[in-house]
Parts: sequence; structure tokens; C-alpha cells
Amino acid sequence: MSLALTIDELASYLEEVFPQVRNDFAFDLLEEDRLRMRLLVGERHLRPGGTVSGPSMFSLADCAVYAMVLARVGRKALAVTTNCSIDFMRKPAADADLIADCRLLKLGRVLAVGDVLIRSDGLDKPVARATLTYSIPPAR
Amino acid sequence: MSLALTIDELASYLEEVFPQVRNDFAFDLLEEDRLRMRLLVGERHLRPGGTVSGPSMFSLADCAVYAMVLARVGRKALAVTTNCSIDFMRKPAADADLIADCRLLKLGRVLAVGDVLIRSDGLDKPVARATLTYSIPPAR
Amino acid sequence: MSLALTIDELASYLEEVFPQVRNDFAFDLLEEDRLRMRLLVGERHLRPGGTVSGPSMFSLADCAVYAMVLARVGRKALAVTTNCSIDFMRKPAADADLIADCRLLKLGRVLAVGDVLIRSDGLDKPVARATLTYSIPPAR
Amino acid sequence: MSLALTIDELASYLEEVFPQVRNDFAFDLLEEDRLRMRLLVGERHLRPGGTVSGPSMFSLADCAVYAMVLARVGRKALAVTTNCSIDFMRKPAADADLIADCRLLKLGRVLAVGDVLIRSDGLDKPVARATLTYSIPPAR
Repeated sequence: MSLALTIDELASYLEEVFPQVRNDFAFDLLEEDRLRMRLLVGERHLRPGGTVSGPSMFSLADCAVYAMVLARVGRKALAVTTNCSIDFMRKPAADADLIADCRLLKLGRVLAVGDVLIRSDGLDKPVARATLTYSIPPAR
Repeated sequence: MSLALTIDELASYLEEVFPQVRNDFAFDLLEEDRLRMRLLVGERHLRPGGTVSGPSMFSLADCAVYAMVLARVGRKALAVTTNCSIDFMRKPAADADLIADCRLLKLGRVLAVGDVLIRSDGLDKPVARATLTYSIPPAR
Repeated sequence: MSLALTIDELASYLEEVFPQVRNDFAFDLLEEDRLRMRLLVGERHLRPGGTVSGPSMFSLADCAVYAMVLARVGRKALAVTTNCSIDFMRKPAADADLIADCRLLKLGRVLAVGDVLIRSDGLDKPVARATLTYSIPPAR
Repeated sequence: MSLALTIDELASYLEEVFPQVRNDFAFDLLEEDRLRMRLLVGERHLRPGGTVSGPSMFSLADCAVYAMVLARVGRKALAVTTNCSIDFMRKPAADADLIADCRLLKLGRVLAVGDVLIRSDGLDKPVARATLTYSIPPAR
């Protein structure tokens, strides 16, 4: 049980497969079964009133678990999200990055499950939590 | 039990409160407890390989239930998503709009629940399904 | 795409593999992609105040999707629930059976997804809804 | 922010309002925002093959978050589950209690959210995880 990618390899690979979200995310920490990444909050992530949009938080949670799975199984860009449950619990701060703390709960032969706690940088109380399941295609 | 907004009032109101998603969505149908809307799929919604991104489908499901609730309770832009569960079941077509069929399952004093079945225009099999809960703030 | 089991074969098989829930359930209808079953509500399913317990409704939803999958793939008792999201929306009637209407949304090689709408017999408004994912083990 | 009930008061109160599950559960730990309880696994919780049933795990998760909320808001038996998402990730041991570790993530005026990690006593890897939302009725 060890990492297939370093934090830098992971960042490069995500930029390669998801060029659209380049500049949206940064990685703070990567360990065997946890990862911390942040959404670099900008104008495009905000809703009127200055709060970060739901789809932006969904996207952060989705990327965090995807990156965690990739870090373990290596460059299999075909892993696909099959399920997500997400709870929005508080209004995020408008002028702070969002920090996602991901735990890898299961890494099976065909399914991987991770959960994510999201909070505004500098604050303690979580603004959202999510659990995601990924389907891992058979090796070719 | 009747609608507080017509389909045209609903469309105008959403453009007013969510200017970012103007041009992303169109409404096909509005009845007392169901609504059909579509994501006008463009380059910005796609992932490499030509499939519609997960966050775009989340956004469609979220907007559909939000619009359904608004159509019933009137212009209370403060209604907020508290929970979403979403299942991604098939790869969407790359060159077709996504159609969301929303059913309003509950409209209570403080919570509303709706579910959504999403399919690619012209195809039968659903690509995704979602259930969303909205918290309705007390009238001021 | 056709049924592997008749409604009677399905009922017998479930009694064989889940003897604990014998007498709890009955089947009303079985078609290629939908199934209706009922929880024969008794004292053991109730909470103080006379409402059907959450675990009893979870169990009904779980059995309904499991039975729907079995009806299609045949006697593979090893199919296992991997995920459930359930919304409790209204208080069930205490003195009526619960009816579960299941739709099979996906039957893939490794995953099956179905959703369920639950209502009290004789009433229209749903008391609960659920979506369940089953993992289908490789044929031996 | 402090506890409204001690661990002993909590146990007595649950036995009073849920006499059916008396002898099913025990409390190991109660703090301001977390609680550990166990399912005292017996024959009635098992499925053929000796694994703990899904409804038993659902019931454990539901009770854990309910108890955590009660411990904070006091004896308001009317708090009701509105939503649960649960992932079943591994087969539980047949001959060990199940331990549920609950975190209280939000305790709002009308909604409370908690998550639960379930593992077999003596083992590290989680067998299931769940998130539950409770609706808290207005004080009378």
C-alpha cells in the first residue's frame, strides 16, 4: 500500500487531463489515505451575494477524491464518478479559499470510496461534506 | 396548490438572480409538480473525450429543483440547497442537450424535496439521477 | 432484455435466502424494469406514536431493488448493496401497508441502480424515496 | 455549547422512547461533538452467511446521530430523520460488535447533520459510513 504518484506528478497529471480546471486547484498535502486540496476561489466561483456556488463545491469534492484515487492507482484517467452525496451546511466565506480534506475509505478492485470535509481557509466549522464513489475500470 | 410563477416569469427571474448561467438553460415545460428543463450543451460543459462534465450535470439538477420550488413559492431567492445525492449511470452524448425531468416530491414549511432524471436529448436511457433538498427560509 | 424469474419464483427465492423477513413482504407487480412490493406492516415495524420505523422503510427499499435486480439477473444471492440514499418526507399511516414502487434505472455488468417511491396504501403523497446501488459479482 | 444530557441520561432516555431496541445498543463515549456507540450484535442482526444485515447497520447509524443530537438539545423525542446516505464498503465480522463513531457536523436551528464511521470491534477498516440529517421541530 503506497502512493503511485507524488504530489507534483499528481498536479501535473490533473492539469493534463482537466485543462479546464487548471488554476482552480492546488494541493496542500498527500499521504497514503488522505489528501488536502484547495479551491483557489475567484470571481467565476461565486454566486450573487458573494458565496461560493454549489457546483464549485461539488467540483472540489469530486476532484479531491479523484486525485486521491489516482495517487494510489496511477494514471488511469478512465476512473469515473458513479455516486455523490453532498451536504451544504454553512455559507462559505466569499474571500477565502476552500480547503477540502479527503479520506480514502475504500480502494477495492472495482470501487473506491472517499469522503471530503470542506471548510473556508482560516475557519473551523465545515461548510460542506461529501462522499463519492468511483468505478475503476479493469486494467487493459 | 397552484403555480406562483409562469414559465416565462421563472426564466426571467433565474436570469436575474443567476446571471452566470444565462444561456446555459432553457425551460421546456412547467406543471404543478413537475418541470422539464434542458442544459444547452456547449464547449464549456465538456470534459476531454467529449462527455458532459459531472459539475455541469450537478448544476442542471440543482437548477431544475430550485426552479420547481421557486415556481411554487414565488421569488424567494434565499432558498438554499442543503443536500444532494446524485448517481452518474451512463456517458452522456457529447453533441446533444441534456434534458432534466424534475418531480416535486415534497413542499413543506421548511423543506422541499425534488428528484430529477437526466437524459441526452433523443435518447431514452437516463444518464444520471439526482435528489435535492432545499431549505426554505421563513417569510420576512 | 427479459425477466429471469417470474413473480412467484422471486417470492420463493427471497423467502429461501432471507428467512428472517418471510411474512414481512408481498409482491404486487413485476415487469421488465419495474416492480411493486409491499411491507405488511405489523407491530414489530412501528415506533412509539404508531409510525413505521426508519429501518423498516430502509429494509423495504433495499428489498425492492434487490428483488428487481434478481428478477433480471437470476439467482445470484451474492449481489450486495453498496450505497443507499433515502429521504423521509412524511409520517406514514400506522394502520396501512407501505407500497414501494421500484424503477430499475441501470443494469450494468458490475453495477445496478434502482430507485423507489414509498407511500402508505390508499394515500397518494410519498412518505419516502430511496435510490440504491448494487454490486453484481462476476459469474462463477 | 455544552451537553444537555450525560451519557447515562442519554442511555435511559433512548430505552424509554425506543423500547424495541433496548439491549441492542451501548454507549462507549460522549463528548461535545462526538459520540461512540456499539451494536451488540446478536442472531437477530445477522443475514445468512453470518454478516450483519444492512438494516441493522442503518439502524445503528440512525441511532448514533439521533443520540448525538439529543445529547445536545435535550429530550425532544420529536426530532426526525429527513435524509440518510449510507455506503456499505466491507463485510462486517459476524462475531464482533459494530462500533459507530459519530461526528456532529452541524447543529442549526432547524437542521442537524452528523456522520458516522462503522467498523467491526477490533478491526481498523470501516465496514460502512453514513451521513444523516435531522429536522428539529420548533420548541413548544
